[in-house]
Amino acid sequence: MASSSRALTRLAGPQLAPRAQMQVPAARAASRIASITTTSSARKFAAPSARLPRTQQSQILSRQFRRTYADSAPAAPVKKRKVRVFRWLWRLTYLSVLGSIGYVVYDGYVARHPEDQFVPDPNKKTLVILGTGWGSVALLKKLDTENYNVVVISPRNYFLFTPLLPSCTTGQIEHRSIMEPVRQILRHKKAAVKYYEAEATQIDHARKVIKITDNSEIKGTITENEVPYDMLVIGVGAENATFGIPGVRDHSCFLKEIRDAQAIRTKIMDCVETAAFKDQATEEIDRLLHMVVVGGGPTGVEFAGELRDFFDDDIKKLIPDIADRFKVTLIEALPNVLPMFSKQLIDYTESTFKEEHIEIKTKTMVKKVTDKSVEAVITHPDGSKETVTIPYGLLVWATGNALRPIVKDLMSQIPAQKDSRRGLAVNEYMVVQGTRDIWAVGDCAVAGYAPTAQVASQEGAFLAGLFNNMAKTEALENKIRELSSNLNLKPGNTAEITQEIETVEKRLRRTRDVKPFHYSHQGSLAYIGSEKAVADVAWLNGNVASGGKLTYFFWRSAYLSMCFSTRNRVLVSLDWIKAKIYGRDVSRE
Amino acid sequence: MASSSRALTRLAGPQLAPRAQMQVPAARAASRIASITTTSSARKFAAPSARLPRTQQSQILSRQFRRTYADSAPAAPVKKRKVRVFRWLWRLTYLSVLGSIGYVVYDGYVARHPEDQFVPDPNKKTLVILGTGWGSVALLKKLDTENYNVVVISPRNYFLFTPLLPSCTTGQIEHRSIMEPVRQILRHKKAAVKYYEAEATQIDHARKVIKITDNSEIKGTITENEVPYDMLVIGVGAENATFGIPGVRDHSCFLKEIRDAQAIRTKIMDCVETAAFKDQATEEIDRLLHMVVVGGGPTGVEFAGELRDFFDDDIKKLIPDIADRFKVTLIEALPNVLPMFSKQLIDYTESTFKEEHIEIKTKTMVKKVTDKSVEAVITHPDGSKETVTIPYGLLVWATGNALRPIVKDLMSQIPAQKDSRRGLAVNEYMVVQGTRDIWAVGDCAVAGYAPTAQVASQEGAFLAGLFNNMAKTEALENKIRELSSNLNLKPGNTAEITQEIETVEKRLRRTRDVKPFHYSHQGSLAYIGSEKAVADVAWLNGNVASGGKLTYFFWRSAYLSMCFSTRNRVLVSLDWIKAKIYGRDVSRE
Repeated sequence: MASSSRALTRLAGPQLAPRAQMQVPAARAASRIASITTTSSARKFAAPSARLPRTQQSQILSRQFRRTYADSAPAAPVKKRKVRVFRWLWRLTYLSVLGSIGYVVYDGYVARHPEDQFVPDPNKKTLVILGTGWGSVALLKKLDTENYNVVVISPRNYFLFTPLLPSCTTGQIEHRSIMEPVRQILRHKKAAVKYYEAEATQIDHARKVIKITDNSEIKGTITENEVPYDMLVIGVGAENATFGIPGVRDHSCFLKEIRDAQAIRTKIMDCVETAAFKDQATEEIDRLLHMVVVGGGPTGVEFAGELRDFFDDDIKKLIPDIADRFKVTLIEALPNVLPMFSKQLIDYTESTFKEEHIEIKTKTMVKKVTDKSVEAVITHPDGSKETVTIPYGLLVWATGNALRPIVKDLMSQIPAQKDSRRGLAVNEYMVVQGTRDIWAVGDCAVAGYAPTAQVASQEGAFLAGLFNNMAKTEALENKIRELSSNLNLKPGNTAEITQEIETVEKRLRRTRDVKPFHYSHQGSLAYIGSEKAVADVAWLNGNVASGGKLTYFFWRSAYLSMCFSTRNRVLVSLDWIKAKIYGRDVSRE
Repeated sequence: MASSSRALTRLAGPQLAPRAQMQVPAARAASRIASITTTSSARKFAAPSARLPRTQQSQILSRQFRRTYADSAPAAPVKKRKVRVFRWLWRLTYLSVLGSIGYVVYDGYVARHPEDQFVPDPNKKTLVILGTGWGSVALLKKLDTENYNVVVISPRNYFLFTPLLPSCTTGQIEHRSIMEPVRQILRHKKAAVKYYEAEATQIDHARKVIKITDNSEIKGTITENEVPYDMLVIGVGAENATFGIPGVRDHSCFLKEIRDAQAIRTKIMDCVETAAFKDQATEEIDRLLHMVVVGGGPTGVEFAGELRDFFDDDIKKLIPDIADRFKVTLIEALPNVLPMFSKQLIDYTESTFKEEHIEIKTKTMVKKVTDKSVEAVITHPDGSKETVTIPYGLLVWATGNALRPIVKDLMSQIPAQKDSRRGLAVNEYMVVQGTRDIWAVGDCAVAGYAPTAQVASQEGAFLAGLFNNMAKTEALENKIRELSSNLNLKPGNTAEITQEIETVEKRLRRTRDVKPFHYSHQGSLAYIGSEKAVADVAWLNGNVASGGKLTYFFWRSAYLSMCFSTRNRVLVSLDWIKAKIYGRDVSRE
């Protein structure tokens, strides 16, 4: 009896269950005997605890069974506890789901029911902000708009979350999910902000006015106008650089705006359908299904990865005839891709691309682009050079920034900018060198940092702080002026007013003490296909480099948290779920 | 004591609770006494039922309390029952939510994991289907593809759920949600089907070949080819009719394809942003915000309604400066809008439009369209005519069908078609008059019905049945031929074989007996704005006409059920929820 109960004790311990299965036939027989002989004693032990709370009961019970007798009954409390744990987990799950739905609905309600705005005092300074990219929008988000007459000018009436743009090219994410209307952003500021959907074509530095043009398809009687400014922030970004290579602008797709992503999406399917045209020649199918990406930065790498995913996950399944012909090539002029990442992640990316059959051609300079091929010069490891012609179906140009005409024009107006090449040189407070009242942020400004969204966003937020501060400073200065003008007008209040002036001056000194802009690098992220990503993240004083599937989840959650609004986050999450369940849409549109 | 218990009985009845609140102070004191004096008797009544099932217990308890004594305790069983009802409702809710999610995931899995297809016997007949609209897709859905070598040719590689297209113009629904890739549809057929993304440019009736051209942006070396057919189904639909009115094609938007809806969506916001341009003149703002719809059919009416919703629900809130200037006008040449609906619904639509400030101009013929205005002639009730010039910002042309060139060309080849004007005249089996082996469905066929999705879809399904039948017939005929060739070859089996032949011939007769096409009208539906719809639905032998908010829910559920796939249904539902929570996107893209 004793030995059989010990065997059963083992059976009762949940962590030992798998091992116990080997002894099953003997144990089962024993359990039958035990259940007959030990039920009464089990009941004896169970009885006294009947009036105790449930958790105490089960604790006592399980302790007793481990210590003394045991039969098949002990499984019950364990099961009950399991059931309880499961029940609580389940409750937690649905409560958090309900909570999230509630939050989303509430957030939507707030977004759709903005409060009334007041119009700022027209005597306040006019602050004109050009652009609706990372820099300008970060500035707008933090700016107290009641201190200025704010005017926003941009030909694009929405903010675009550019890091997820490569995912839009394959329909992994729908483009509307990463757009946030500027009107929505501005409508939720305390004080009204004017917005003109127009391109700023010229900054008249001397007269302090900006020329704007309505470049969109539908035009009114007035298509050009001038906007005067007291303070100006330039956040117009940059254009795509073609480095003067012939044919690039005519034959390749860029990947900077929503329209670019849409065009690429249409072209991918166009290539596939044209390759599947009746009696298409073999080499022509190979050409059409060869997608070439120029530029080994994060955009190019992510696009190549997404493209491969699209083909492997979706196109291959639906159009099996051409399954083996699809090819992706990544061309990079430098010795390796992703130059901002650490060596080990570069190696990881290159080996992952090899597995995915994405060919990387490094040290390869594109010389000429025609409608069906790229001419490039490869520098081999031994230093020898080779000119190759690479036929392609789709060519995506994801490399480098060039100055926008408005920036070029302003630079030519300012003598101090004559040596600057890559953009408007700014000082440590983002003031454009050689000007007063003009600031620049993002890709059009040269502040010594890489032209990334992260830098632009921090610069914009810095400027918002600066401008809020300037307004506060002015208010305090006005107060001091007012107080000192009252001084000695009436007898007896001198000491009081002097003290108040001192207090205000102290606050003023503190407010005035603005630290110059300092960029804090949070890290770099890139998706590399097959649900793998690489990440170089700043951690304490060092750097953490990681790559793989887990990093992909980090990549996703990082991008999700960086999205502009809850709306964007919800839509992007839905898109991911949608793509997981249904795959990407292969309709050509 | 008796009076206080009676007061408490009232308190216990849940439906009396609100009234009882007025007596609260006295009742509360009484309840304290009652709870002391009556607990023992309550226990006495409760005790016998302790061993009964719960529901019986509570029934007995509640009956007892109503009959005899009462104290504050009786509230408990009622509450408990309520809790139980609530709990079951809740369980039902989450189980159905879990079930739906499970079904959606399963459906997605099936959609993404098609089985291997076999290639049909090349000796079988080649069935070519032109187009991927309602007719062709309904045919493809029901067709047993193993009986033929099926080839589908269309320049549009997806099926479009056109009834929801007006919703796409405002972003109420995203266009991808109502598209179903043809590749997806074909990949799930048992036998492989060829698809060429190309425009059929000519049907060579005599040689039985179709000329196809790749009209898309990306072209291979082969852009034109010929496809031979044994059987041909023409389902190419129709073009937009401009009735030869000058300027229509240059200045107005159509509403037939996804690209049209996208163009309209962009233009609506373009008009709004251009109207908000700096110092735009008042009359110019009025012009830009005047949206004119030509055509009072369901498409025009639904578009006008959606447009008004977009403005009232979203644009107005975000851009309040121009809130009062927005105007929609609907122009119709006939005496009223929605001619296919009953008189009362036409009146209801017209009065609803009046409330929504949508102006309806009936008996108005457009004579000329310029880039900024429409010239039209209005026939007044007294018969007098007036020429008016209507300035507009956006003009949408939603009226009438015209022949596609390929249909026109085929008609010119066939003498029997020379009197047909509106399309290919077909017989009761959808066979194009004057041909053999050519069928036509949908808007390009004239079968005596209105050019609607419903008709096209039923015609397509009819043809699928017909073709499946023809294949079966042929198989049975072959069997008879085989059997009769075996007859009298060996002695003794004559009677057996003769009997078998008879059985097969009987089946053959039954199979051959195909009834001609008969259209069964299910009803007409139209959305008219402000969450109201009108519906004329066939019911038994009559017609049910209804309009209003409830009909809107019917409209939604009817359209949802008509969607091509579960994927479409899920995406459309999500879009509706998205628009409800976040409103429509005002980004111009």
